[in-house]
Amino acid sequence: MKAQPAESSGGSSDRLLRASSALADIGLDALLLGPSADLRYLTGYSPMPLERLILAVVFPEGEAHLIVPELESPGAEAATAGSIELIRWKDGADPYELVGKILRKISRVAVGDRLWTSHVLALQRQIPSAEMVPATELMGGLRSIKDPDELDALDRAARAADRTFELIRGQVFTGRTERDLGAELARMLVEQGHDRADFTIVGAGPNSASPHHEPISWRIAPYDVVVMDFGGELEGYFSDITRTVVVEDEPAGFRQMYEVVSAAQEAAFQAIKPGTRAQEVDRAARAVIGEAGWADGFVHRTGHGIGLELHEAPYIVEGNGTPLAPGMTFSLEPGIYLPGRFGVRIEDIVVVTEDGARRLNASDRSLYVVH
Amino acid sequence: MKAQPAESSGGSSDRLLRASSALADIGLDALLLGPSADLRYLTGYSPMPLERLILAVVFPEGEAHLIVPELESPGAEAATAGSIELIRWKDGADPYELVGKILRKISRVAVGDRLWTSHVLALQRQIPSAEMVPATELMGGLRSIKDPDELDALDRAARAADRTFELIRGQVFTGRTERDLGAELARMLVEQGHDRADFTIVGAGPNSASPHHEPISWRIAPYDVVVMDFGGELEGYFSDITRTVVVEDEPAGFRQMYEVVSAAQEAAFQAIKPGTRAQEVDRAARAVIGEAGWADGFVHRTGHGIGLELHEAPYIVEGNGTPLAPGMTFSLEPGIYLPGRFGVRIEDIVVVTEDGARRLNASDRSLYVVH
Repeated sequence: MKAQPAESSGGSSDRLLRASSALADIGLDALLLGPSADLRYLTGYSPMPLERLILAVVFPEGEAHLIVPELESPGAEAATAGSIELIRWKDGADPYELVGKILRKISRVAVGDRLWTSHVLALQRQIPSAEMVPATELMGGLRSIKDPDELDALDRAARAADRTFELIRGQVFTGRTERDLGAELARMLVEQGHDRADFTIVGAGPNSASPHHEPISWRIAPYDVVVMDFGGELEGYFSDITRTVVVEDEPAGFRQMYEVVSAAQEAAFQAIKPGTRAQEVDRAARAVIGEAGWADGFVHRTGHGIGLELHEAPYIVEGNGTPLAPGMTFSLEPGIYLPGRFGVRIEDIVVVTEDGARRLNASDRSLYVVH
Repeated sequence: MKAQPAESSGGSSDRLLRASSALADIGLDALLLGPSADLRYLTGYSPMPLERLILAVVFPEGEAHLIVPELESPGAEAATAGSIELIRWKDGADPYELVGKILRKISRVAVGDRLWTSHVLALQRQIPSAEMVPATELMGGLRSIKDPDELDALDRAARAADRTFELIRGQVFTGRTERDLGAELARMLVEQGHDRADFTIVGAGPNSASPHHEPISWRIAPYDVVVMDFGGELEGYFSDITRTVVVEDEPAGFRQMYEVVSAAQEAAFQAIKPGTRAQEVDRAARAVIGEAGWADGFVHRTGHGIGLELHEAPYIVEGNGTPLAPGMTFSLEPGIYLPGRFGVRIEDIVVVTEDGARRLNASDRSLYVVH
């Protein structure tokens, strides 16, 4: 069955057809996707990933099948609304054999990143002579440029995250634990319009120097630096913002470091325009921090794309030569971390425009003192 | 560095050593695990799965490494507490090459099910002559038999799910949407002690015949059958219960079907004892439904293991010859579905005991009428 064009231009069938032609362009014989943001993007279907095989098989000529366990088929039918042919299998049957028959003649196949290893290895046994390549780049290329509906959801999520920061900085910090503040952030993210909170990193005092710190029972005290990195999901799209504050007063040597990170974030922002390569944006931030003598303290890339996943293409990192294009959305989040002392990170989500970039987060980036 | 035995017998280092000896027993040269319940089980470390490679490499002699991006290393250090050697890599470096060097001489390696495809394929390129097999069975064997702390968490989660059902059946159903009831269940699951709600399936009227129905705007009316299948996470462990109720009165022909499913669930329960194969439990439930003439309506397996994941080994399905052993926990959830009319499913979590089984869910299984 051919994929049917949907009525709206953002419909998933239109996306299936774009995936088909992308396959044809790069000389791939098929695309295999399990439950994932990729599958949701192409078909509108968003099942829980389970050990039972659920697999979309897309061919370059526009033919597409969705292999589903029988008990998932009502949900699959409802979500895909006829845009893709369903092939059902029952518990006890061998779904890999079934896929093997469909894929008999292919020699090069792209496989989605989230397909479980047991499925990947079982499919390799069915088509031993076929070369598997990750579908990461193919799907990243399709998904990285957001359509207006997607931008609208990302905009609303960013504003809800902004309001969450405005609310949290008015709260009492002294005497509270990181975990308690993290729970408060999660509550506020939902209150401000997210469907769910996704993550709330709160690193205080020396923990602010751990970029992905899990909130613990550290009790916040005056002179603590507090890094808060949080986000939620709104209609399938994510927010992600980081602000760093100080409690009562800044520790010695902190202000200068904060200003350097802030300048690095602005330099990255100014570096964005259509055609610029992703790594150039990373270099712009890194140059500012390097010149200030803190190159070793900036232990991560400058940013990551954001959309149906919190982290997706384009990655703003050395080695990524992808040219930026209008509609791409990603984070700018340089940081400096001094182990045992403190850290700073400042993060906004931005969208590439026709002549530069626009920040989706409008929240002030100057250094706030909390109490 | 050798894995160090932890102080408590349930400690993750002890589990690492058990994984090492399991590898040796089945003649595997290494085990590779990304962020997953498997990694959490063995090391206590539970990072978000990210596109940056995080990988545990375990050898049969007890040697074990954890490859982590530099920015994740403080969290990894804190969680693993010296039980496994950390190998750090920076954004921009090639972590696969690093793993390739560590794995130079291996010929057969087990790979965790949740490792992303791009990682699996990149690792295959580093060790092209090595055979990869899924680590599913190896890790399932270790994780399926729960220790007392795990059973305690599963018990508490089951009781919280029981209380949620007791509360929801006292609520008004008529006139409410499935989605509204689902949100109410999610709220109650947390209120009753879960750290978070994981899923709330509410299928009413003809939707009760779709086993994994997503709650929608269907408005519940008298004579509707309502299947509610819900669960949450408590300290990393899951609950999962299904109850089917009728609104005001049962539709024609429903009562008999309900009694058959209830008898099938009890037959499965009675079939459990140490040494019985998992598929025998499935057959026991299926025989009851088959004798009643509804074999075609029972479209899924009888159950699945439960623990750090909602679905894990042992699967209670035809073809699974795993002998049951004390401490194994799984669901018993036979169902019958008549498309376009209605469905029934009744599910409890059980634990295998020395001489049979015990239900963790104590909630009554008789047919309730709601209003």
